[in-house]
Amino acid sequence: MAQKKFVLTESDIPEKWYNIVADMPNKPLPPLHPGTKEPIGPDMLAPLFPMELIKQEVTTDKWVDIPDEVREIYKIWRPTPLFRAYGLEKLLDTPAKIYYKYEGVSPAGSHKPNTAVPQAYYNKQAGVKRITTETGAGQWGSALSFACQLFGIECEVYMVRASYDGKPYRKLMMNTWGASVYPSPSNRTEAGKKILAGDPNSPGSLGIAISEAVELAFQDENTKYALGSVLNHVLMHQTVIGLEAIKQLEQAGDFPDIIVAPFGGGSNFAGITFPFLRYNLEEGKKIRCIAAEPASCPKLTRGVFRYDLGDTVGMTPLIPMYTLGHNFIPAPIHAGGLRYHGAGAIVSQLLKDSLIEAQALKQLECFDAGIKFARTEGIIPAPEATHAIATAIREAERAKEEGTAKTILFNLCGHGHFDMSAYEQYLSGKLVEHEVTQEEIMQSLAELDTPEIA
Amino acid sequence: MAQKKFVLTESDIPEKWYNIVADMPNKPLPPLHPGTKEPIGPDMLAPLFPMELIKQEVTTDKWVDIPDEVREIYKIWRPTPLFRAYGLEKLLDTPAKIYYKYEGVSPAGSHKPNTAVPQAYYNKQAGVKRITTETGAGQWGSALSFACQLFGIECEVYMVRASYDGKPYRKLMMNTWGASVYPSPSNRTEAGKKILAGDPNSPGSLGIAISEAVELAFQDENTKYALGSVLNHVLMHQTVIGLEAIKQLEQAGDFPDIIVAPFGGGSNFAGITFPFLRYNLEEGKKIRCIAAEPASCPKLTRGVFRYDLGDTVGMTPLIPMYTLGHNFIPAPIHAGGLRYHGAGAIVSQLLKDSLIEAQALKQLECFDAGIKFARTEGIIPAPEATHAIATAIREAERAKEEGTAKTILFNLCGHGHFDMSAYEQYLSGKLVEHEVTQEEIMQSLAELDTPEIA
Repeated sequence: MAQKKFVLTESDIPEKWYNIVADMPNKPLPPLHPGTKEPIGPDMLAPLFPMELIKQEVTTDKWVDIPDEVREIYKIWRPTPLFRAYGLEKLLDTPAKIYYKYEGVSPAGSHKPNTAVPQAYYNKQAGVKRITTETGAGQWGSALSFACQLFGIECEVYMVRASYDGKPYRKLMMNTWGASVYPSPSNRTEAGKKILAGDPNSPGSLGIAISEAVELAFQDENTKYALGSVLNHVLMHQTVIGLEAIKQLEQAGDFPDIIVAPFGGGSNFAGITFPFLRYNLEEGKKIRCIAAEPASCPKLTRGVFRYDLGDTVGMTPLIPMYTLGHNFIPAPIHAGGLRYHGAGAIVSQLLKDSLIEAQALKQLECFDAGIKFARTEGIIPAPEATHAIATAIREAERAKEEGTAKTILFNLCGHGHFDMSAYEQYLSGKLVEHEVTQEEIMQSLAELDTPEIA
Repeated sequence: MAQKKFVLTESDIPEKWYNIVADMPNKPLPPLHPGTKEPIGPDMLAPLFPMELIKQEVTTDKWVDIPDEVREIYKIWRPTPLFRAYGLEKLLDTPAKIYYKYEGVSPAGSHKPNTAVPQAYYNKQAGVKRITTETGAGQWGSALSFACQLFGIECEVYMVRASYDGKPYRKLMMNTWGASVYPSPSNRTEAGKKILAGDPNSPGSLGIAISEAVELAFQDENTKYALGSVLNHVLMHQTVIGLEAIKQLEQAGDFPDIIVAPFGGGSNFAGITFPFLRYNLEEGKKIRCIAAEPASCPKLTRGVFRYDLGDTVGMTPLIPMYTLGHNFIPAPIHAGGLRYHGAGAIVSQLLKDSLIEAQALKQLECFDAGIKFARTEGIIPAPEATHAIATAIREAERAKEEGTAKTILFNLCGHGHFDMSAYEQYLSGKLVEHEVTQEEIMQSLAELDTPEIA
């Protein structure tokens, strides 16, 4: 039998994270203070994050040690399996070889615990008692709840009201791990109260929820804030994915021509591609790394590269990013984890320098790919993950047209157990496509008064 | 770091299933025809099952080859990991060593695909076009949908109406894998129509759903029926669990004193214990194998050993079983997979011969154990699995009282991603306990007119 699954033992869990900043020809630009527009130093982030994470945010060291305590918890689901997608290849009748790294085996069901665990760990080391965060669809909130529970830290999650009402099971998962979950906007913060005063029935947004979580961290020295994507240290924590995949593809005697990952804020994409991009940067290899973003939130393919806020209220630093504008409200696609207006600083710089690529995909193409995958490979993918599958299928079909045996690797970042109603909509023909017009994008960008980048 | 996770590679997937019948001192009694009460031969099962499965049902061969095609699909999730429960041990402050085998990594989220895949395979080999089955909570129905999809067989699932309405996501999972799912009782069968005529709002039961699925298989030669537990071949397919666990405990340099598994019809329990029971039967080892059943459906601890029907309508053979009577209606506990009135013939004989043990557990104790587990080990267990966890905790606490370093192994048969509302009820204090009185059991058993066993 041909080998389908490539497994590693727990001694293969990486001992260091890879920091791509060390190898970037152009380093990411510094974040700016939202008021003064001046570069901000590590000390200005201290109310929000423990110093070890701030150091990781700004370090240019190429490798950063993973603490033993973190590796100990990684053992619950890491190393994750790498699979050869024989079933999908057969369906597509493609000469391409398709591999996928499966991160859905984590207790929270996605790649998010890879960074939630070290973030909780460094907070615990710093004596932090409580961590606040926001969550949209709930993957990040559940990952942080899981991590905080294991370290005995209180976790307070501000969940976008629309998701809180529409995805009760994700909320219950967080409760099961002991977290408190509040619908956002809430009456627990000034930011929330202000929004509710204007609209008592506000469905909330990720931007508002971030503002609430950040506000609480600023108020209490025993409380810090945690973010699930975008920031440099978050992306670095995810590199365990790609570092393991390198070993697994070695087992398979293979090396990728193309790597694909879904794109929200960048951590999923960074996790699988950065350790491979190193071969491009160091050895001149030509692996194509493709970020798969939703066509309804196309910051990489249709946004601009400039400074922008991470939230809507303006409590976060200004970050150099590909953005649609911090007031852009993405359509309610099912891939909630990809509904963010901007991309992290590192990924944005890499795209600016043409070191990575991006493709935008519509929802129907993605769900069609998700069903094909579930019916050939067996695993039901999260809506976010279907963006990578659809892109991999595009590339496999191109390989067929060209008659080339490309090797494609993608990140199957999570399972779809909490997204079955989205599949029902697709299967019953009720799934609607969300287009975003050039006018809408121009209007959102026109409102920006943040610094441009030369 | 002490090793927590014990992994195997795909070459370690067992090549043969273990058939405990070969080693039993008293063989299970034969099934009887429901009309004539005479022992039935393989040919009488032919309308329901393909001949290869019937052969497996009656074989006394000690080892049965696993086809390559089945092992190929097993690779999607097998070998499953074995973990040492350091977190739970620490919480309990016990000298016991606790291990668990985690079957929730399968695409359907439980151990059920271990038998669904070979059943679909042998049906495919026999040219069967459609398989009918019943499902309660949905684990079995989703496992069979998954397996049928991979072999290109139509799958028709009769889902107990109460579950169909109350657990829509399990139904959608089956649809995603291409299965047709009907609420039972339905208008598609005579059995269903009869029930609906008496009660148009019938919530259904597993017994009714089995009758519907069996009726359809009897009617059409291209249609067969599949069962997810109870039968000998089903139990045998599950022995891959224990066979892998033996290798993994060898890695750990350990051997179990006690093995625990949840008990519904017996396949979960058989899967992990039978390969170890072999050491008791062959070498005189004294491993305690404990079946953990719900106190509200206590066939092993409070039922009788006699012939009984597998369904309520009387279309199945009479099986020698520990039973509460085929008209016994278990209370609506959340562990839907354990709500079955009887135990399979092999397990019943083993219990009769005192070669295994049984314990009955109440729902609150189980959910309390489930929360403890989720908060120390990270994985949210299915309600069925919490029965094994609770029993393992009982034994670990006893080990502490006795000051003995027992080694306990249990089967974590599935995750609880589709059972979050049950956790909500527990966490909000709304979970009710379901008692069954001796009078209720006596009444159900008094109705039985099936043959007794001397």
